[in-house]
Amino acid sequence: MAHRLDPLLNPRSIAIVGASDNPGRIGGMPIDLLTRFGYQGVIHPVNPKYESVFGLPCVRSVEDLPAGVDLAVLAIGAQDVTPMLQRCHARGIRAAIVYAAGFAEAGGAGEALQAVMEDFVRESGMVVAGPNCMGFANLNSQAYTAFASVFKTAPRQEERGTVSLLTQSGNVCAAVFAIARELGVPFSHFINTGNEACLDFAEYLEFLAQDADTDVVLGYIEELRDGRRFIEAATACAEADKPLILFKAGETDKGREAVRSHTSALAGNQQIYRAAFAQLNVIECQDFAQMAHLAELARYRQRSAGRRVAIVSISGAVGAILADKCIGRGLEVPTLPQALQETLRAGIPDYGMVSNPVDVTGNVVNDPGFVRTALAALATTDAVDTVIVYAPGYLLDRMADDLIAAAAAHQRLIVAVDTGRATRRDDLRRHGVPVMTDIGMTIETLAPFLHWHERRLQRPWLALQGRAAVPADGAPAITLPCNEYTARRYLSDHGVPGVAEHVAASADDAVAAAEVLGYPVVLKVLSADVPHKTEAGGVKLNLPDAGAVRRAYAAILASVARHAPQARIEGVLVQAMAGKGVELIVGAVRDPVFGPALTVGLGGVLTELYRDVSHRLLPVDATAAAAMLRELKAFPLLDGFRNAPHGDVGAACEAIAAFSRAVLALDDTVEEVEINPLLVREREQGAAMLDALIVASAH
Amino acid sequence: MAHRLDPLLNPRSIAIVGASDNPGRIGGMPIDLLTRFGYQGVIHPVNPKYESVFGLPCVRSVEDLPAGVDLAVLAIGAQDVTPMLQRCHARGIRAAIVYAAGFAEAGGAGEALQAVMEDFVRESGMVVAGPNCMGFANLNSQAYTAFASVFKTAPRQEERGTVSLLTQSGNVCAAVFAIARELGVPFSHFINTGNEACLDFAEYLEFLAQDADTDVVLGYIEELRDGRRFIEAATACAEADKPLILFKAGETDKGREAVRSHTSALAGNQQIYRAAFAQLNVIECQDFAQMAHLAELARYRQRSAGRRVAIVSISGAVGAILADKCIGRGLEVPTLPQALQETLRAGIPDYGMVSNPVDVTGNVVNDPGFVRTALAALATTDAVDTVIVYAPGYLLDRMADDLIAAAAAHQRLIVAVDTGRATRRDDLRRHGVPVMTDIGMTIETLAPFLHWHERRLQRPWLALQGRAAVPADGAPAITLPCNEYTARRYLSDHGVPGVAEHVAASADDAVAAAEVLGYPVVLKVLSADVPHKTEAGGVKLNLPDAGAVRRAYAAILASVARHAPQARIEGVLVQAMAGKGVELIVGAVRDPVFGPALTVGLGGVLTELYRDVSHRLLPVDATAAAAMLRELKAFPLLDGFRNAPHGDVGAACEAIAAFSRAVLALDDTVEEVEINPLLVREREQGAAMLDALIVASAH
Repeated sequence: MAHRLDPLLNPRSIAIVGASDNPGRIGGMPIDLLTRFGYQGVIHPVNPKYESVFGLPCVRSVEDLPAGVDLAVLAIGAQDVTPMLQRCHARGIRAAIVYAAGFAEAGGAGEALQAVMEDFVRESGMVVAGPNCMGFANLNSQAYTAFASVFKTAPRQEERGTVSLLTQSGNVCAAVFAIARELGVPFSHFINTGNEACLDFAEYLEFLAQDADTDVVLGYIEELRDGRRFIEAATACAEADKPLILFKAGETDKGREAVRSHTSALAGNQQIYRAAFAQLNVIECQDFAQMAHLAELARYRQRSAGRRVAIVSISGAVGAILADKCIGRGLEVPTLPQALQETLRAGIPDYGMVSNPVDVTGNVVNDPGFVRTALAALATTDAVDTVIVYAPGYLLDRMADDLIAAAAAHQRLIVAVDTGRATRRDDLRRHGVPVMTDIGMTIETLAPFLHWHERRLQRPWLALQGRAAVPADGAPAITLPCNEYTARRYLSDHGVPGVAEHVAASADDAVAAAEVLGYPVVLKVLSADVPHKTEAGGVKLNLPDAGAVRRAYAAILASVARHAPQARIEGVLVQAMAGKGVELIVGAVRDPVFGPALTVGLGGVLTELYRDVSHRLLPVDATAAAAMLRELKAFPLLDGFRNAPHGDVGAACEAIAAFSRAVLALDDTVEEVEINPLLVREREQGAAMLDALIVASAH
Repeated sequence: MAHRLDPLLNPRSIAIVGASDNPGRIGGMPIDLLTRFGYQGVIHPVNPKYESVFGLPCVRSVEDLPAGVDLAVLAIGAQDVTPMLQRCHARGIRAAIVYAAGFAEAGGAGEALQAVMEDFVRESGMVVAGPNCMGFANLNSQAYTAFASVFKTAPRQEERGTVSLLTQSGNVCAAVFAIARELGVPFSHFINTGNEACLDFAEYLEFLAQDADTDVVLGYIEELRDGRRFIEAATACAEADKPLILFKAGETDKGREAVRSHTSALAGNQQIYRAAFAQLNVIECQDFAQMAHLAELARYRQRSAGRRVAIVSISGAVGAILADKCIGRGLEVPTLPQALQETLRAGIPDYGMVSNPVDVTGNVVNDPGFVRTALAALATTDAVDTVIVYAPGYLLDRMADDLIAAAAAHQRLIVAVDTGRATRRDDLRRHGVPVMTDIGMTIETLAPFLHWHERRLQRPWLALQGRAAVPADGAPAITLPCNEYTARRYLSDHGVPGVAEHVAASADDAVAAAEVLGYPVVLKVLSADVPHKTEAGGVKLNLPDAGAVRRAYAAILASVARHAPQARIEGVLVQAMAGKGVELIVGAVRDPVFGPALTVGLGGVLTELYRDVSHRLLPVDATAAAAMLRELKAFPLLDGFRNAPHGDVGAACEAIAAFSRAVLALDDTVEEVEINPLLVREREQGAAMLDALIVASAH
């Protein structure tokens, strides 16, 4: 099956335009690599200055090339790129890689230069990578088009590669490659995307999702250009059961001082990426070494595994440390069933432990029959999903045969940890037992891997497939800007519960409404021109009777007229008192990359300080809403914390799901929608939106 | 200067009781190591079964040993230990190491066995390590008394050791040793303490603080036995400028469900350890590899360094990642001064960056003169304290001479990061430039190291020296249990501001008090037998006049009589209304290891969920209190967050300092003291304790 990117990533013939015979120069390095490592395709150096390069005949110009060359690598200056692309296209070359810098990343004239290039590429249909990119490598076909010395210095790869690297930085690509090769990770594609003028990250990812040579994708992202396409490509990876391991740069957002609302303040770009990654079951990394180790671990992904871990250690101390770290990273270390403990006790000295972590003590290696029995028991018990075995150096060597036998007999993942220098590490790895060499990295790697394992069965990415197809639902169009009453009406029309309310045009009207709603009531000025209603004297709470309502009506109008004489008054809201409960904030923003995204948190000023919020791309149904609420550290407030009443979590989740539908029915003239607060009453008492806001896009 | 532990840690002669000629057995392994690595002292195998062991003459019994042997290593069973210690002592042997398990750690009979041993050791004055310990090693004198195979498998140490290991687990000791030796860390002492029957962690630490062969201490702690002695020993390390790098196990406390108060819930044992470590400028670790890398970095501690970091990278992406990680770990990456930026711009291409992180681009290595200029500028600017240089592989090699020249010319710490395989790593390290090989580990190590650097100048440990000498201050003795009024009076006598209040014995008395205090007032039942006053109808707020006070007085007595007929009523409190402000919780507990420790947090139910609290060992003065408040994520609430008024932080700090004095004046019949809440009013309006609690110790 030919893919549009095949000439780029699986080229059968490569022309190097601007070829050099100096392996230190960008026109020489790829030819050095291609010839050194035995590329099976045809190499065509192009440079009028040379007769031959690296022993290969060199042609004067692209016009001298034979017909049907797959790929041209342009090792030439920025000014010359588009004319050369035109000549390559005229000669029938289907794809090109542009090394040159000095395009959009340089601003000004460079941007114009890139626009010209983009126009030509679009018209011609050529497949062009870069500009400002380091090139690629196909480690299986030895098609090196990268000027990267790392291929010469990293340990040589003998086996067939199955892991592909896809990064938005050439240097990061090289650094991760170097670290992972030290661990023995075998690579397939080495891709860095440069300026992504004509090909973006998501399109490469699409390629890798269907690439037979790629089982695992390691990626590095600074900023995605096309969030929707990324979602589709990541979904394709997930459906193909290919772990997608991504490092997203930009943890500390500095540019978020000016914020327009609570939701904007809470939903930083990085948080939305993180939400998208979780929904797509992307394994998120924070470090190159962690990426490399995850790539190694991902090779064992066909084994059964999950979050409940048994820890077997020859040291009680190290077992406890591992357990601590597991729990700290969201794994479980359950107490083992009594019968299993008894099985273990038979072979463990009194001073060892059998509950989990299991401290088998150093003596265990003197009783290999017991090691085999213990591993078999742990590999088959229903009480755990994954087994970690800590035994350093010769102790691991003494257990190696038993570990290999257990891995052969059982599907369950057994991970060995060796802080010594066990000689049988590679032997174990070849026979299905990954060997980690660092306590911290073991859990930093294993925890996200086991979370991936559990989520792959839940297939959370499926929920995102509905987002394009959400129907407008016959919803009333909303005219912006709109006041809070209109905003609440819009949301309640979509099923978000509110409080009973009425817009009164006179004191009599207000009293009539209050009689219907039932006392006590709240009066509140309705005006888009009075943002701080309380400060303007525009709110009166807890009004017990008709007299109080009349007095409040007059007082509000007088006070607002004094504070904001220009304000257009649209009426006075009469609301039923809302009652007690826990207040949530529920907001949606239109993320520039991913589109509508939801934020849920506890209401109030502390939420912003503690950043105790949960994010998801929309749509969010009631089940997903429940998961979001449970992610909040403040969730116990809804769950009977310190004898407080349990909140009506079910009603809150239904309200959030209705909010999700309402937001998706809006178009991109809306920037932001927020309920603040959503009151969650006691169990069976429901939830109620007390206030809401719909903000128009600036554009 | 002879130290009591010298015969243990620097023995000139060693008897191995229970010697074996099998290097795999505990009686053989130390002799194997001693002979293999060339111990310069005298080795005396003792075992009636052998004539010679490892080519050394073997005596039948300790009575056959020459006089004046420094150390006996007892490779014998638990039952035989105390009789053998007696025989060793009779033969004039000053110190012993007990390998045997089966003592206190085994419970029951083992505990009794250990008590007998302890009695003998105390009476005899022998110096005895263990039991249940793996033994020691002095890597400089080759005095191996440990049965640990790691010395044979870890890279051999050629240089003189300066780093000592002190752990409460033999396996952890071996694991850290193995990892650190791979990095080339040179060790002095290898110590694991076992059961600490007669010698505890702190006493070993005292030895290392004064040991000329120890510049850096790496430690692992499960639980300290003597917090006061540990504080003194850690202070001695700090005064000797020896970094103390500790890993404290037990991050997830499981046994804290049953808590008696908010403060107990907030101040877990691990948090108190962490507070003590911070005050003693201990570098806290969470991982073996991190410990090993910190030991490596600590070798460069004489260089000047601090939290403000300049990052120089050949890759913009990696520079940004490093900056992110620095900021995430509390370091600063300040924008460089304009003049310095211009100096850098002269040698950096347009597409590079000069502000910080500095992206010198890969081209920089073609201009070695510029590298030298740039490093000199960064090594001398006042704008930063520390320089990180990222250059992988051959790029670092090309910069190596310039880095070495900069390190020779300037005192400032310059850290190189190489994710490739630079050949000059060791050369750089020898010449004052540490080389890290992993992005994540670089910052996980450098951040705590730079924090240590800054704090060593502040000498925070000095504050703890006052804690034993705090005078009782003529404070009135307090009789326990005491009611809230007495608790507040005790604290206000020590200078904690309260609200004006009076204990009324009648309605008339209450009205008279209210007239003096000024309306509105609060009435509250005073009774140690009514813990939940509000629920019992025992509190009436905001009483505006005499009539209201009379009605409230009667209502309170009636309601409490109904809710708690048995309660002894000590009166009714009349209090002035406290006004508005931010509520803090200020509490002290008597930690079993470290003694009185303070916890400060925002008041209210969320504090417990978010664990947003700060801890210190007492005493805490107003300056330390200010630092504690600033550690709170909620601190902006006191600092004008979202246009709220600024709180009177100064008054709050004075109140906390007064609380500290009051707590230290109490003896250990008091378990816990708590102010909840301490109301912090607007700036210049002061702070006020609204409620307080003093809890007696259970014993």
